[in-house]
Amino acid sequence: MAEKTVGGAATYISLAASIFLEKMGLVSVVGDDFPESVMQKLRDRGVDLQGLEVLKGKESFFWAGRYHYDMNTRDTLETRLNVLLDLDPKLPAEYRKAPYVMLGNLDPVVQGKVLDQMNERPALVVMDTMNFWMDSAMPKLLEVIARVDILTINDAEARQLSGEHSLVKAANKILAMGPKYLVVKKGEHGALLFGAGRVFFAPALPLEEVVDPTGAGDTFAGGFIGFLARTQDHSFVNLKRAIIVGSALASFCCERFGIERLLEVSREDIDERIQQFVELVDFDIELVEE
Amino acid sequence: MAEKTVGGAATYISLAASIFLEKMGLVSVVGDDFPESVMQKLRDRGVDLQGLEVLKGKESFFWAGRYHYDMNTRDTLETRLNVLLDLDPKLPAEYRKAPYVMLGNLDPVVQGKVLDQMNERPALVVMDTMNFWMDSAMPKLLEVIARVDILTINDAEARQLSGEHSLVKAANKILAMGPKYLVVKKGEHGALLFGAGRVFFAPALPLEEVVDPTGAGDTFAGGFIGFLARTQDHSFVNLKRAIIVGSALASFCCERFGIERLLEVSREDIDERIQQFVELVDFDIELVEE
Repeated sequence: MAEKTVGGAATYISLAASIFLEKMGLVSVVGDDFPESVMQKLRDRGVDLQGLEVLKGKESFFWAGRYHYDMNTRDTLETRLNVLLDLDPKLPAEYRKAPYVMLGNLDPVVQGKVLDQMNERPALVVMDTMNFWMDSAMPKLLEVIARVDILTINDAEARQLSGEHSLVKAANKILAMGPKYLVVKKGEHGALLFGAGRVFFAPALPLEEVVDPTGAGDTFAGGFIGFLARTQDHSFVNLKRAIIVGSALASFCCERFGIERLLEVSREDIDERIQQFVELVDFDIELVEE
Repeated sequence: MAEKTVGGAATYISLAASIFLEKMGLVSVVGDDFPESVMQKLRDRGVDLQGLEVLKGKESFFWAGRYHYDMNTRDTLETRLNVLLDLDPKLPAEYRKAPYVMLGNLDPVVQGKVLDQMNERPALVVMDTMNFWMDSAMPKLLEVIARVDILTINDAEARQLSGEHSLVKAANKILAMGPKYLVVKKGEHGALLFGAGRVFFAPALPLEEVVDPTGAGDTFAGGFIGFLARTQDHSFVNLKRAIIVGSALASFCCERFGIERLLEVSREDIDERIQQFVELVDFDIELVEE
């Protein structure tokens, strides 16, 4: 069991995205227990915090969980939304023209309010969500899903959202809800990308040691949109690359508790890991027909 | 729930392997309830049944289970070993010089007896097993594992056999038990090949419809060894191809109950499916360093 560590979807997403971007803004809310040192680290990496509200005398969002033996599934022991209950996002003026928007996993009401404040339709909106909102706020969730380009959820959530066993059928149903692409995150089993009538499978790197998978999904999302924002290419071919980049970053995230490893990862580290992905799935085969 | 269907590891393994081989022998035992029509189909595909004992007045092995919602995990409802309790394998003379031996999932005592009867060490021995034998016959199981070249088990079994969470560590421990290679089958999440200091990941094809995954592991094993026996190349590069071929065949197996789909699959079908695997994992990426 780890001690309490700083977290939050926005922290992981922005740290990962900042590897590819000079400048980005963050919208969220924390209590005054959130460490100034982490905020400074974000600023140092070009993350604008105008959109981060710090509520005096309140506590930050807190989550505690226990990972199962395979480090892939987990039970939530405690969730304290704390300040997140007060989150009424107000986008600073310059955020409103951002071409790339990542909606972290939060109340779809909040996600919708962010989109409402954009001056015009962003070039790309990626949305993360989870089963909690499917259970508690499905109508609103569907409304927001209809407004985004890419949805990222895990395999159980894809099945829950669509009511289909088969991930192929689930993907077809979810794509009919609005998004052009669906990313199905499967933790240690990799990720699938559906859309444009195609499917791509990215493996997860088998790791010697998984210390803490918390934040891996957010790190994936941050690397994914960061790479897309940098390359400004939304083709299926480039989305595949973005998935590999996001998966590589997520693998670093699992190697230490919290944001530690992510703070020190270099471009060279990423390149090396991407090369491991290339080798991991590489095969050549003569077709067997004679 | 399916009705009762003909099954047995040997049926799936030999049907799959027969796609690549002119001639092969099968050693097993069935009751006189085993349909003659299936035996004829096996013979038609070049499967020699001299080694198949038919016990009068006895019942064939019976397994019934319920697959979970994701069609990936299952509960055993009933296992009746029946005739398998009487299996004391006696290899016909010409089987004893077979260069390729696939030990299907059975009591390791039986698997060991097969190896004992070989005239010389075969060129390649592949062994399948399961958690049941780890729970009930570990010492004997370890003895046989030490005598084989390639072990195929699922991810939970790799963790059980090694006592390690991480599949990388699990693989290292299992390879130290004797086999040169380890194949970790993960059902809808694909398969991993460990050995020679390398790792390869083969995805499973996302299927529109999974009717019945029973026999998919055995079909995989049959395709895997059938391809290796045909190509007679045991390099890591060729093992990767064998995994893709085995995975392709396993995907056909899931599309219908029992052996139906497997009986009609053509070389062209396999080629087409292998092409889908190629596309599924294909990506190109410029490294991100600048």
